[in-house]
Amino acid sequence: MDRGEFERMLGEADRPAPVGVSYADSLLGAAVRRWCAPPLGLPAGAPLETYLDRRADLGPAEVARRLLGAAGLSYLLVDTGIGGTDGADSDWWSVRGLASAAGAVGREVVRLESVAEDLADSGVAAADFADAYVDALAAATRDAVAVKSILGYRHGFDVDPRRPSRAEVTAAARDWLLSRRDVDVAHGGPERPASVVRLRDEVLLRFVLWSGVDRGLPVQLHTGFGDRDLRLPSVNPALLQPLIEAVEPLGTPLVLLHCYPYQREAGWLAAVYPPVYVDIGLTVGQVGARADAILGEFCELAPFGKLMFSTDAYRLPERYLVGAAQFRHSLGRLLRGWWRDGDLTAHDVDRIALMVGADNAHHLYALDG
Amino acid sequence: MDRGEFERMLGEADRPAPVGVSYADSLLGAAVRRWCAPPLGLPAGAPLETYLDRRADLGPAEVARRLLGAAGLSYLLVDTGIGGTDGADSDWWSVRGLASAAGAVGREVVRLESVAEDLADSGVAAADFADAYVDALAAATRDAVAVKSILGYRHGFDVDPRRPSRAEVTAAARDWLLSRRDVDVAHGGPERPASVVRLRDEVLLRFVLWSGVDRGLPVQLHTGFGDRDLRLPSVNPALLQPLIEAVEPLGTPLVLLHCYPYQREAGWLAAVYPPVYVDIGLTVGQVGARADAILGEFCELAPFGKLMFSTDAYRLPERYLVGAAQFRHSLGRLLRGWWRDGDLTAHDVDRIALMVGADNAHHLYALDG
Amino acid sequence: MDRGEFERMLGEADRPAPVGVSYADSLLGAAVRRWCAPPLGLPAGAPLETYLDRRADLGPAEVARRLLGAAGLSYLLVDTGIGGTDGADSDWWSVRGLASAAGAVGREVVRLESVAEDLADSGVAAADFADAYVDALAAATRDAVAVKSILGYRHGFDVDPRRPSRAEVTAAARDWLLSRRDVDVAHGGPERPASVVRLRDEVLLRFVLWSGVDRGLPVQLHTGFGDRDLRLPSVNPALLQPLIEAVEPLGTPLVLLHCYPYQREAGWLAAVYPPVYVDIGLTVGQVGARADAILGEFCELAPFGKLMFSTDAYRLPERYLVGAAQFRHSLGRLLRGWWRDGDLTAHDVDRIALMVGADNAHHLYALDG
Repeated sequence: MDRGEFERMLGEADRPAPVGVSYADSLLGAAVRRWCAPPLGLPAGAPLETYLDRRADLGPAEVARRLLGAAGLSYLLVDTGIGGTDGADSDWWSVRGLASAAGAVGREVVRLESVAEDLADSGVAAADFADAYVDALAAATRDAVAVKSILGYRHGFDVDPRRPSRAEVTAAARDWLLSRRDVDVAHGGPERPASVVRLRDEVLLRFVLWSGVDRGLPVQLHTGFGDRDLRLPSVNPALLQPLIEAVEPLGTPLVLLHCYPYQREAGWLAAVYPPVYVDIGLTVGQVGARADAILGEFCELAPFGKLMFSTDAYRLPERYLVGAAQFRHSLGRLLRGWWRDGDLTAHDVDRIALMVGADNAHHLYALDG
Repeated sequence: MDRGEFERMLGEADRPAPVGVSYADSLLGAAVRRWCAPPLGLPAGAPLETYLDRRADLGPAEVARRLLGAAGLSYLLVDTGIGGTDGADSDWWSVRGLASAAGAVGREVVRLESVAEDLADSGVAAADFADAYVDALAAATRDAVAVKSILGYRHGFDVDPRRPSRAEVTAAARDWLLSRRDVDVAHGGPERPASVVRLRDEVLLRFVLWSGVDRGLPVQLHTGFGDRDLRLPSVNPALLQPLIEAVEPLGTPLVLLHCYPYQREAGWLAAVYPPVYVDIGLTVGQVGARADAILGEFCELAPFGKLMFSTDAYRLPERYLVGAAQFRHSLGRLLRGWWRDGDLTAHDVDRIALMVGADNAHHLYALDG
Repeated sequence: MDRGEFERMLGEADRPAPVGVSYADSLLGAAVRRWCAPPLGLPAGAPLETYLDRRADLGPAEVARRLLGAAGLSYLLVDTGIGGTDGADSDWWSVRGLASAAGAVGREVVRLESVAEDLADSGVAAADFADAYVDALAAATRDAVAVKSILGYRHGFDVDPRRPSRAEVTAAARDWLLSRRDVDVAHGGPERPASVVRLRDEVLLRFVLWSGVDRGLPVQLHTGFGDRDLRLPSVNPALLQPLIEAVEPLGTPLVLLHCYPYQREAGWLAAVYPPVYVDIGLTVGQVGARADAILGEFCELAPFGKLMFSTDAYRLPERYLVGAAQFRHSLGRLLRGWWRDGDLTAHDVDRIALMVGADNAHHLYALDG
């Protein structure tokens, strides 16, 4: 892995930076050098070139073992619908491999759209799509702790909040399956472009989301920033109000992931809608030194019992350690500052750290089974 | 009042938190324990259960007297169109009762939509609605210092900015009055659902707002967060630009309330539109330790002569004291920090604190008559 | 220049503040008194009246020389399409005059819409408009380092991202030129209202923007706040995603100016789109003591190699010095704070300050030719 590839895997860019610009010249790059150099035997803040040389010397499995081990995680809840997590059990990036490297328990989060795409690949008939999806989701989530929706990526949140009818689902499935078949014919199979293979139909996206809600496990929703495939204004979680209200009577928890730069909107939703929880992953792992300020914004309105740590890491072991270490450091600074200024008692500080860092997720995802 | 009810009255949620979550496990809950425990004879930061026991022992009138007294308020400008402020003079939550408990002067703010709803209840004919509303508003505001619009709650700010014609008002009044009559018949009276009784018609909402503008008193506009009845993206005060420009020639001041998370948008409006003022209530009272950071954002563009303190409190005496104490503490910290860093002189600090905390409102609402 | 005029030229307001309010009672006013009083021989923080008296005694040319000299600028990249920069070479506000007062190199930025308006004034035929514009732009930018678009002011970012066809341009030019001619006839020439003279046609705005992209110089785009002529929600730079993607294959850099309150959106765009850069001018110069916090937000996601200092100053010498001095002070505080907390090394601090303060712009605008 060369420096350019490492830099791209670190952040959300999917193509090289222009000449003279390095993605690692950023708070994220500085956080990697701060938190990840010591476990590799280098001083905190070591230059990136030195770090990458050392990394190459140690090899990927050892790097993963050291960085994931240093992250001090107890549970890894892994979205298996994204490239880089679906390896064989012996690969470090599989659920089992990650858990082993981290010395943690691994549990699965099932991506709703991936189940639909796998089903489409299986040759299902349009008329059977709705039932077959429910069955496939039940099978895929047998041991899962949550499902995840990437509606924000695939369409944005300006959707009809209603559950689509069976007839609507069948008609939409027919169109989608036909368009995929046309592409198969044209491309002769494996070279199919993502634009067609991926589920982007608004009706089917709502259908898989509602199927996820019916499943009863917490539903994670990607909101806010990510890579450039999304339109940022359309993933503002405040746009989810109609959907939240439609889902609320069923009692399924909704977990807003990432949120940035809409963390305040997310906090308000968590404050006024009982089923809404907020995951502070991605954001905290990507902004380095600014994590305290952003955690502060998450805390403005959201009850502490609804905020949950995660790393949002994948592909790169550094993201696991940076996400965990920066979170501990920044939440600690934030809470201690509030204690010093008289805003919280020492007992509050301990309780909140434990809630946000572990207990809330433990409870919500029923990690004790 | 049990713990659950206390927690809901504290914030903006209108139904119980899910199992395992407490609304009081929040910066707001911590602020209540910090500021309100001492006036009840408990140490700052006392556990909530202890606090609630003590509260029950003292009884509501004594609690109100202690907390409102500790708030150190000179004037209470009370929106009388919301439940919890319309008691008899002897109730602590009436304008007179609040003023008495606080040792302050009480003045009234009249909610434009409530005057219309009362008028509808009176059996007015649609053809008379426009004139009768103007008369009713004049009567209702005889001793008032401001009027208040909740257009944000009832419709959002994507409205035609123009003053509606008399014919439009009469036609809209006819529809609204008929729909209310139908509901009366169906429900036999008092059990009428809020969805129909409440004024939600866009034309009539504009009409009552323009009538308020004509009245000449400052017009307060709810913007930004509140409870879940509003759609957050549609109450961004920046959406009010066309309306502000339409109102500007009349010279009536417009006061943006709450604003969060759009405090920066509000500050910009105050900086470029002469009639726009900003009230930092609600927000500061709800975010506890984060009030300094948010006050800082309000101050980025807004002239200090246009920022005004309020508590936005109602129903719960704690909200009055938290709003006032947190504001004093946080604005003080913010201004002293700027003085220490050389951004302001000591004289600036004193002037700004006095302007934002008292003088601006004194002047704008003509509190000396 | 009286106090009221000075205050208006300082900020973004275009008409007097209401009675009892001063635009200079603001963080911006405090920053002027902090940074600009010493070069005029007064103590930092001197009262504004004292400052204005001293200013009047010294006279405009001497004030410009002192304040611009104190700003310590090496290059002045001046948008010559805005009033107040188009003086004779001997006027201090011309490119040459500014450069001379500052002891800096002056270079020109050409406003795309101004070139079109000058062309329309020249009597060009609609059928020739497209070619004539390309020629006029080539001539106007012979020595320029960048072009600038004010699409945000004239229309907002909800535009079709495609390059318009020649036929569309000719048809739109015909309508625009005719409407200007009608106004000429009605007004007899020089008294033409800005509403008609200004280029506001969506097709022509896209055409001049694409012509700027074709020219190959960096394209600066006004985004975020400014005066009240813009609609704030429609200048959110995140709305530019489709346009950025359309422009990207051509390799022309896009520089987002101002951005506030959308600095986080701008940072994300810089992090995921190779051609996008961010200029932190205006914002930092207008918010005084809050500049550190806002610079922090710019840095959350944007690579440091894409952030660039500017003052966004014009008309008033104070804006040049405040923009430069506040930037140095606030970025220094921010970076030193991160170093003290272990987020950056001392070497990082020096590098980042140099990149953002000088080198990035030097490189992007090819200031060495």
